[in-house]
Amino acid sequence: MAKLQTFERLSLNQITTGNWNLREAVDGCVRQEIPWIALWRHRVEELGLSESKRLIKDAGLQVSSLCRGGMFPAETALERQKRVDDNKRAIVEAAELGTNTLVLVSGPAPDKNISEARKMVAEGIEQIVPFAEDHGITLGVEALHPMYAAERSVIVTLNEANTIAEQYSPNQVGVVVDVFHVWWDPDLYRQIARAKGRIIGFHVSDWIVPTPDLLMGRGMMGDGVIDINRIRTAVEETGYNGPIEVEIFNETIWNRPGDEVLMEMKERYIKHV
Amino acid sequence: MAKLQTFERLSLNQITTGNWNLREAVDGCVRQEIPWIALWRHRVEELGLSESKRLIKDAGLQVSSLCRGGMFPAETALERQKRVDDNKRAIVEAAELGTNTLVLVSGPAPDKNISEARKMVAEGIEQIVPFAEDHGITLGVEALHPMYAAERSVIVTLNEANTIAEQYSPNQVGVVVDVFHVWWDPDLYRQIARAKGRIIGFHVSDWIVPTPDLLMGRGMMGDGVIDINRIRTAVEETGYNGPIEVEIFNETIWNRPGDEVLMEMKERYIKHV
Repeated sequence: MAKLQTFERLSLNQITTGNWNLREAVDGCVRQEIPWIALWRHRVEELGLSESKRLIKDAGLQVSSLCRGGMFPAETALERQKRVDDNKRAIVEAAELGTNTLVLVSGPAPDKNISEARKMVAEGIEQIVPFAEDHGITLGVEALHPMYAAERSVIVTLNEANTIAEQYSPNQVGVVVDVFHVWWDPDLYRQIARAKGRIIGFHVSDWIVPTPDLLMGRGMMGDGVIDINRIRTAVEETGYNGPIEVEIFNETIWNRPGDEVLMEMKERYIKHV
Repeated sequence: MAKLQTFERLSLNQITTGNWNLREAVDGCVRQEIPWIALWRHRVEELGLSESKRLIKDAGLQVSSLCRGGMFPAETALERQKRVDDNKRAIVEAAELGTNTLVLVSGPAPDKNISEARKMVAEGIEQIVPFAEDHGITLGVEALHPMYAAERSVIVTLNEANTIAEQYSPNQVGVVVDVFHVWWDPDLYRQIARAKGRIIGFHVSDWIVPTPDLLMGRGMMGDGVIDINRIRTAVEETGYNGPIEVEIFNETIWNRPGDEVLMEMKERYIKHV
């Protein structure tokens, strides 16, 4: 597919500049003319919700998503209820911050029963959908790479995310496609096509070889083996033309000057996304 | 399912005692009364094929499999032919060593085109099947965990392994089920059932949390989150009652006295497999 020509869809996911607080990230986006930002709750909490909202509004940035709700499975009903309550707080925060997308990272199983944990995810989502809808928030189910199944998400394929989302209307529940999490999947292009009308987020980074670390080993686009352009093409053929978040967990990148990272990110975005 | 009561199916995959050479591993199996061993080609090469064969025969051990053939995708036709030739050598070695199973680790893509690499795997297998059959060797397609897609195997699901195996008769091509590689898969139990009559190897270890390393982070059975017993039950419901290999890549385990590892392995085998 043709390359991207402008930066109007580019979004900085805050985690990419992990040593920057929210104020620094917003200022960086303004300096580098990046129109979108994806926020993390702990960074919003540091600054305070209303101050974060004011800062982003004054900067003229748009918020592509809030990370993250989810983490549904837990051993007891009481603990699961606490998780649901926390998701409701995340929904309120997302609405307040002016995004319509809350990314859901489903959570790991509390024990060895991964099938049961998957049911808990479905039940947790069911419990928050009406609340989210009332607040104008669409829940974005994100399949995480299977190497995170034990620690972060029992939802590990786009197939599973689609199956959950299809229980609801597209304005209630959609899916988030992150190339790092799904590039390996033999069923990927069929599942992207199936997600037509339900993709509400698209995240990019790269899979570098050798992979230095499970969590912090993502690479800048173009530094790895993912055919990002092919995946973007498939995503856009479903009709998605929303923001494209750059979400890179990598301490080496964190330790570089933030503006340098943003500049490289823009160059790679045009070249490899 | 009922626990295993004896060690008659237990096999030491050599990689579990990574600091032992073949002679030490064979001696260890004899001392600890482990009847099966799974061999790695580089360890056989160290000692020499005929000496390895003699050693194993004298010890009265049975060889559950030889690791490994595969590594089919490559940039040029010439290089792919070299890989096929190497697989033929592995087949000869496997037959010589008295096993009927050659484990195939498919290999990574030479570039960003993972779909094309998957075709190269299918083509590579097609080219070696007649040779394997002539030597009485069944090829065991092993799906590796998706986190190895970029470096070791583009075949990452049992679904893919089954699809390849079904092109052939069960004595030509089967599948190897390793709990570490497949435990996360939402489609796992359906694919195990589908593999009925084609499972020719079953490998155990565990997924430990937090996971210390992509390659060397496997755990001893019982130390992680995999419901090994449930998977074994499903595998045996297909009719598989062959050897169960303990295959653990973990440097901490390598650095422990080998006999201590074998004793713990036996205890965990009864308790958690």
